Amino acid sequence: MPLWKGRFEKESDPQMWALNASIHFDQRMAEQDLRGSLAWAAALESAGILSSDEHGRISAGLSDILAEYQAGQLQFEAGDEDIHTAVERRLGELIGPLAGKLHTGRSRNDQVATDFRLWILDHLPRLDAALEGLQASLLARAETDLGIIMPGYTHLQRAQPVLLSHWWLSHFWPVQRDRQRLDQLKARVAVLPLGCGALAGTPLDIDRAVLAESLGFSSAAPNSIDAVSDRDFAAEFNFAAALVGVHLSKLAENLVIFTSAEFGFFELDDAYSTGSSLMPQKKNPDPFELARGKAGSLIGYLAGLLATLKGLPSAYDKDLQEDKVPVFSAFDILMSILPVISQALDHLTVYDQRMQASLDPAMMATDLADYLVERGVPFREAHALVGETVRYALAQGKSIADLDLGEYKKFHSSIGEDVQTVFDPGTSVNRRSAVGGTALQAVKQQMVQAKQALAHAEDPVS
Amino acid sequence: MPLWKGRFEKESDPQMWALNASIHFDQRMAEQDLRGSLAWAAALESAGILSSDEHGRISAGLSDILAEYQAGQLQFEAGDEDIHTAVERRLGELIGPLAGKLHTGRSRNDQVATDFRLWILDHLPRLDAALEGLQASLLARAETDLGIIMPGYTHLQRAQPVLLSHWWLSHFWPVQRDRQRLDQLKARVAVLPLGCGALAGTPLDIDRAVLAESLGFSSAAPNSIDAVSDRDFAAEFNFAAALVGVHLSKLAENLVIFTSAEFGFFELDDAYSTGSSLMPQKKNPDPFELARGKAGSLIGYLAGLLATLKGLPSAYDKDLQEDKVPVFSAFDILMSILPVISQALDHLTVYDQRMQASLDPAMMATDLADYLVERGVPFREAHALVGETVRYALAQGKSIADLDLGEYKKFHSSIGEDVQTVFDPGTSVNRRSAVGGTALQAVKQQMVQAKQALAHAEDPVS
Amino acid sequence: MPLWKGRFEKESDPQMWALNASIHFDQRMAEQDLRGSLAWAAALESAGILSSDEHGRISAGLSDILAEYQAGQLQFEAGDEDIHTAVERRLGELIGPLAGKLHTGRSRNDQVATDFRLWILDHLPRLDAALEGLQASLLARAETDLGIIMPGYTHLQRAQPVLLSHWWLSHFWPVQRDRQRLDQLKARVAVLPLGCGALAGTPLDIDRAVLAESLGFSSAAPNSIDAVSDRDFAAEFNFAAALVGVHLSKLAENLVIFTSAEFGFFELDDAYSTGSSLMPQKKNPDPFELARGKAGSLIGYLAGLLATLKGLPSAYDKDLQEDKVPVFSAFDILMSILPVISQALDHLTVYDQRMQASLDPAMMATDLADYLVERGVPFREAHALVGETVRYALAQGKSIADLDLGEYKKFHSSIGEDVQTVFDPGTSVNRRSAVGGTALQAVKQQMVQAKQALAHAEDPVS
Amino acid sequence: MPLWKGRFEKESDPQMWALNASIHFDQRMAEQDLRGSLAWAAALESAGILSSDEHGRISAGLSDILAEYQAGQLQFEAGDEDIHTAVERRLGELIGPLAGKLHTGRSRNDQVATDFRLWILDHLPRLDAALEGLQASLLARAETDLGIIMPGYTHLQRAQPVLLSHWWLSHFWPVQRDRQRLDQLKARVAVLPLGCGALAGTPLDIDRAVLAESLGFSSAAPNSIDAVSDRDFAAEFNFAAALVGVHLSKLAENLVIFTSAEFGFFELDDAYSTGSSLMPQKKNPDPFELARGKAGSLIGYLAGLLATLKGLPSAYDKDLQEDKVPVFSAFDILMSILPVISQALDHLTVYDQRMQASLDPAMMATDLADYLVERGVPFREAHALVGETVRYALAQGKSIADLDLGEYKKFHSSIGEDVQTVFDPGTSVNRRSAVGGTALQAVKQQMVQAKQALAHAEDPVS
Repeated sequence: MPLWKGRFEKESDPQMWALNASIHFDQRMAEQDLRGSLAWAAALESAGILSSDEHGRISAGLSDILAEYQAGQLQFEAGDEDIHTAVERRLGELIGPLAGKLHTGRSRNDQVATDFRLWILDHLPRLDAALEGLQASLLARAETDLGIIMPGYTHLQRAQPVLLSHWWLSHFWPVQRDRQRLDQLKARVAVLPLGCGALAGTPLDIDRAVLAESLGFSSAAPNSIDAVSDRDFAAEFNFAAALVGVHLSKLAENLVIFTSAEFGFFELDDAYSTGSSLMPQKKNPDPFELARGKAGSLIGYLAGLLATLKGLPSAYDKDLQEDKVPVFSAFDILMSILPVISQALDHLTVYDQRMQASLDPAMMATDLADYLVERGVPFREAHALVGETVRYALAQGKSIADLDLGEYKKFHSSIGEDVQTVFDPGTSVNRRSAVGGTALQAVKQQMVQAKQALAHAEDPVS
Repeated sequence: MPLWKGRFEKESDPQMWALNASIHFDQRMAEQDLRGSLAWAAALESAGILSSDEHGRISAGLSDILAEYQAGQLQFEAGDEDIHTAVERRLGELIGPLAGKLHTGRSRNDQVATDFRLWILDHLPRLDAALEGLQASLLARAETDLGIIMPGYTHLQRAQPVLLSHWWLSHFWPVQRDRQRLDQLKARVAVLPLGCGALAGTPLDIDRAVLAESLGFSSAAPNSIDAVSDRDFAAEFNFAAALVGVHLSKLAENLVIFTSAEFGFFELDDAYSTGSSLMPQKKNPDPFELARGKAGSLIGYLAGLLATLKGLPSAYDKDLQEDKVPVFSAFDILMSILPVISQALDHLTVYDQRMQASLDPAMMATDLADYLVERGVPFREAHALVGETVRYALAQGKSIADLDLGEYKKFHSSIGEDVQTVFDPGTSVNRRSAVGGTALQAVKQQMVQAKQALAHAEDPVS
Repeated sequence: MPLWKGRFEKESDPQMWALNASIHFDQRMAEQDLRGSLAWAAALESAGILSSDEHGRISAGLSDILAEYQAGQLQFEAGDEDIHTAVERRLGELIGPLAGKLHTGRSRNDQVATDFRLWILDHLPRLDAALEGLQASLLARAETDLGIIMPGYTHLQRAQPVLLSHWWLSHFWPVQRDRQRLDQLKARVAVLPLGCGALAGTPLDIDRAVLAESLGFSSAAPNSIDAVSDRDFAAEFNFAAALVGVHLSKLAENLVIFTSAEFGFFELDDAYSTGSSLMPQKKNPDPFELARGKAGSLIGYLAGLLATLKGLPSAYDKDLQEDKVPVFSAFDILMSILPVISQALDHLTVYDQRMQASLDPAMMATDLADYLVERGVPFREAHALVGETVRYALAQGKSIADLDLGEYKKFHSSIGEDVQTVFDPGTSVNRRSAVGGTALQAVKQQMVQAKQALAHAEDPVS
Repeated sequence: MPLWKGRFEKESDPQMWALNASIHFDQRMAEQDLRGSLAWAAALESAGILSSDEHGRISAGLSDILAEYQAGQLQFEAGDEDIHTAVERRLGELIGPLAGKLHTGRSRNDQVATDFRLWILDHLPRLDAALEGLQASLLARAETDLGIIMPGYTHLQRAQPVLLSHWWLSHFWPVQRDRQRLDQLKARVAVLPLGCGALAGTPLDIDRAVLAESLGFSSAAPNSIDAVSDRDFAAEFNFAAALVGVHLSKLAENLVIFTSAEFGFFELDDAYSTGSSLMPQKKNPDPFELARGKAGSLIGYLAGLLATLKGLPSAYDKDLQEDKVPVFSAFDILMSILPVISQALDHLTVYDQRMQASLDPAMMATDLADYLVERGVPFREAHALVGETVRYALAQGKSIADLDLGEYKKFHSSIGEDVQTVFDPGTSVNRRSAVGGTALQAVKQQMVQAKQALAHAEDPVS
């Protein structure tokens, strides 16, 4: 039975009831709803609405329901419109009419906003741990693979050699930003709506600062109308999740390409790949493709929630009931992907020979230009000369490392025998030793920085 | 056990398995999967892969599984990666190793695309019927409310009087377009992927045109690589659904505003509204708010699916597994809203007195300008004169219908006693008698057209 | 000066004016606005509002403005709120106060909707021609490259050999669907709003069917309220454009991968690639990356427009002014990409030797399973046996084509000397001869079908 | 001429050039590009690449170009591919071949990322000021309108009376969150990519920490591959902008509804509204409708950018060129709306009589329930009793304030003569005095808090 029956002569149409009810997804906030009600009951006693005895009985009842829920024994009924109704119904069964005092001075509007924020506060650490796990895997790879040189790409064309460890770490920092964003979001979630009533505030003598603290919130929302309708935190969660998705999708795209036979840089462990029902030889990088695909879904949940929030009249509107599926779904998606990606990285085989074989001397063309710059040629001219050298070598069917001195000199007279040194990938890598560069020393420093970041995710490292 | 085990030394990691498996949502296509397999088994017999007896045993087994499924008795197991695997596993239990012949020349790539298309083909008529139901409710309202004049708004400001029936019908035609779009989509869904194998086609001697016909498809897909990766039809379904959502959201926005106390044009039946857990007097238009809010979610499913599809390498990629949740969710959302909205309209109370009271004479300002035009004043000048008249009347605290003749004449000398006729809303309405206008006769013609449209939704009426 | 000044005492604030004005983008519809006004002037004469002489002078004036616009000489002024205002202002300059009669019985609401639909109708053929151009390039490639075998991929892992022509054609059919969708959209655009006034219809004696025909529309909109607010056609255009974008992004993703050094299947012509400002050796597939990136923007324009349309009160709301940028932008994006992609394909170099070198015998594993099936092994068992064979060969460091007969026989005794025939890619390709398959004969048939499709884009071929 | 010509034999196709060039939108970053180059030239001197004299001449040249740009005299040419090329071309014209040394050790990849971040850093304060302006207008309204009671709504149904000032402030706090988000974003933007080269870092002896400081950045990006491809800050900007848009759309929706004739709570000043070209009486809330509509566009720019970023291979890909239009467009949209909305609020007329007239006694139903609670009735029972009272009053055609004592007592015997006190809106408002409530005292405290927030936008107030 709904909590609002009195004024209504007729019952809800069954299809209307099914459309309106939210118990099938908001039951997931049962624990938060119960904790919120326990805190509210305490506040009601402080405000003189409940006697100490009443408070005790209500608290005991709520605790029993919490225990039932945790034991998987809380039953929902067809008439339970939402988790709030279900809890109040069950409380009535356990402690009788006294249950009817719990909702004094409270509305489902401030209650659901409180539950939802509590749920996110409860789950942010889990998400953060999963992100930290991914960072740890990336860092571990960087340590394990230190010294391996791979071709670096721009536009997916071979560009310059880089350390594989440097490449792994290029996926570490985006996750660091993700964690920082989620950490900053936490402060915006931890603002308490409870005690705002339906929209106008509560007439009870409630100390909302105390109430906030008792539930682990930082402060009480300063405006009741805003408090019952603010879903910024949900949108921000979905944005942060979508950006995590984008980061995973970039890592995934690379892994899909690098595990192709043509690149052959990595091989996935059997436990993190799948086969084909038709083609017996196939070994597919499914976890990475799923990560890439689910990034699309995460973008969709964000776009959908923002569209839902757009243009609503003030205070609570029922449209806001559409806020939970996007948040829960985004959380579930990330929690299903992140550990698998981490483990797939942990168990990856790296084929450094294949990487080495891909280190075409043309990737050192910039180093050749730098060689000319060192000999006084302005960079722009050096770039053009090397471009022509590349063209010449292609036409000759040679590598730019394999021209003879006379050929080099046709492009610039300053080129000497020592030009061969520029074609060594290791030299090329180690020349880029400024902060953030791919030189071994710079990468070692970066790994130190990454470890510090891991230890203090909330610091604005990057 | 997966269908692809042979080449793998290790089993999937459990979290990987959970991420990868799709049985929790693709079991919804069990019936389609079984029908597809029945048709494939027949094709295998024609191609000489199965003997008549083998075909008979496989068909009987599949039919038994279909019966189990329809009776709610088909059990899924932890090792069932997807619905295809589950069916093949169950078939093996029922008929033994012969089950292993069913997948000959087929891949899950062409199979799942076939299942998904079949599912949509099966469900489009249900969606169409729900849309037709909404149109019928709108048309019924137009018939019931014929003759009632309401204020028409632009920018939510009172603009010109219109027939309420005309307004109802303004929500009928968008649904007509929706149905037309879905009908045209059907032809693009009814192109058969089966017989395309993993990507290269099937080596068996299969007549795919016959196979297509046996499954109710119009034709066989002309290119196997495209066939296994084409999800245009899913995106198009999500677009059509999003646009239905937008249409419902506009109707909903109006109903929310028109059931407000300040407008007071409509009252919802108790069975299609809800109350407040705190405020005993409340009667809220929840189904309309939910329709409006869910339009946001529908937009999100579309944006998400398109983002998922963007930039995939050719043929099948596992990302495509993300195609079903958006389609199933959009379908479920619409099927939950549409009948409730229809019924809420059927049971609506119309307060025509409130509408009449809102028919401010200033809404006939255009008619006053037309009056001047009839007396030879160019429209642009007439518009300016009436604008000044409105301003003058506001300053006097009068309605523009309540000026005395002298006052009118200050604005234009051609105004005579007969000017009062322009302020009658009924006259204003009935002057707009061109096709598509709000005059009673035009609306009656429109209702005839609407009834014809209902009978032939596929015709390009609007 | 705005067209609506009379009622207002104060002028617009300059920032408000800048926000409100749309002339900076809607001037692009000048030609359509003028054609609409010419048709309206003719209708006004038929309705007896304009004398023949007045009609003649107004038409002459409008024609002069059209000539000015086409000569790039129509000047806009700071006070021109929108294209409609600019035209009426200029008409007044040319023919005097008579210009003030043109707007009789018309509103900017029906006018702008008419202009916008006319603009789309004018530009759909251009977009269609660009799409046809892409199809022609794809088909030309299929013809030129006929006979070349390339590795086909699923999950970007080598799957089965396919004809390169088959692969090109896999990008032809999605464009065919795009053209079909745009063709079907045309009928929904060609519904005339003019004569619907602000929302209630026109009081003039206008034959809207004649008016529709005179402007090249199929019919007059049946409901004036719907007509002035319907932007479905714009959303549908943006959807069709987004899906074109998705198709281009898939082609682009493949081209980016296939022009990488590691794949090396294609090389872009110099005229359709760019270099690096730093790295002299680089040759980047920019047009394809831009096509892929712009697919994201196209998705955004669609999501944005739908969000704008969601939840608006009926009839016209100023929010609708946000409809043009998405449509114009999407059109411009596609018209900038499509010809470049077509030409880049026309000038592509194909390295068939690199493709051949990638045809790993393991890609014929399915053929080996089929070989066993032909010898009576159920497919599922054959699949498992071949999977084990693949695993065995990998462990031996051999190709599955290089085992000796004894080794093969360990997996199944039915394997004989003739097993080697299965490892020929050409044989594998040509076995897949069912409709839609990759066999040469099937692809030749497909090319015939594609040519027919090109000739009759509107037919529901695929 | 492009910066990368050397290696290419043929020139770009003209359509390819048009597609590829970004000068038409990235010229907007001219100032940032020049400042970046000035800093880079200084770094080149420190690294010993430029002599002091060379540095001086390059600096002078760049400063001249900056002056030209600021004077609107920098001309772009057809061959200027992008702003970087244009600047280098112009520098060459001014100082000769020495210009060719500027690009040493730098790539357009790190350069454009630096320019873009600088642009955002330059423009964030302008956006923040516009947001602060809106807050100031809202706060000023709250101060001006203090004491006025309006009906508060949930579900757009009359719920409980609230102070108009409280309602204004409910729109203040979301903007506070917006500003906080933008402030936190600033730290993530202020990470310097310059010195990361194309992807591998720079081989020059550059102190990137010093370089960062010289350009006003907080730190140097720790990983060069990440630095050239990270566009998180752009996506985060678009998210923050979309959420500002959502907040504006909610304010706008309310203003549209509250300026309707039926509500009649507000009237817009003539300078911030527009009229109709057809209907002389119209006065439309265009700035608010445009704000609402543009929220949709802002959502679209976000969704589009995220879709563009999804699934890209590392490091720089040309797709990233699509990052600027979304950011620039979002900035422009907000800067065009925000001041107009602020001013429209400043010049709003409030009709407090209309608000008062809407304060239906049924809005105090919750207070009546509270009255019963104070008399010992459990809230749930009190709620039901009042619901029945409301139903009874409706049936009698009476207000719930107009029942006689006997009628009240039928619902509960504890009701006495003093029940009338509950129906006073002022009493109802002032009972809600807990923090965040609508009581006058609580709102005064909230205004103090809001003023503090205005002074310290970066503090986590809400």
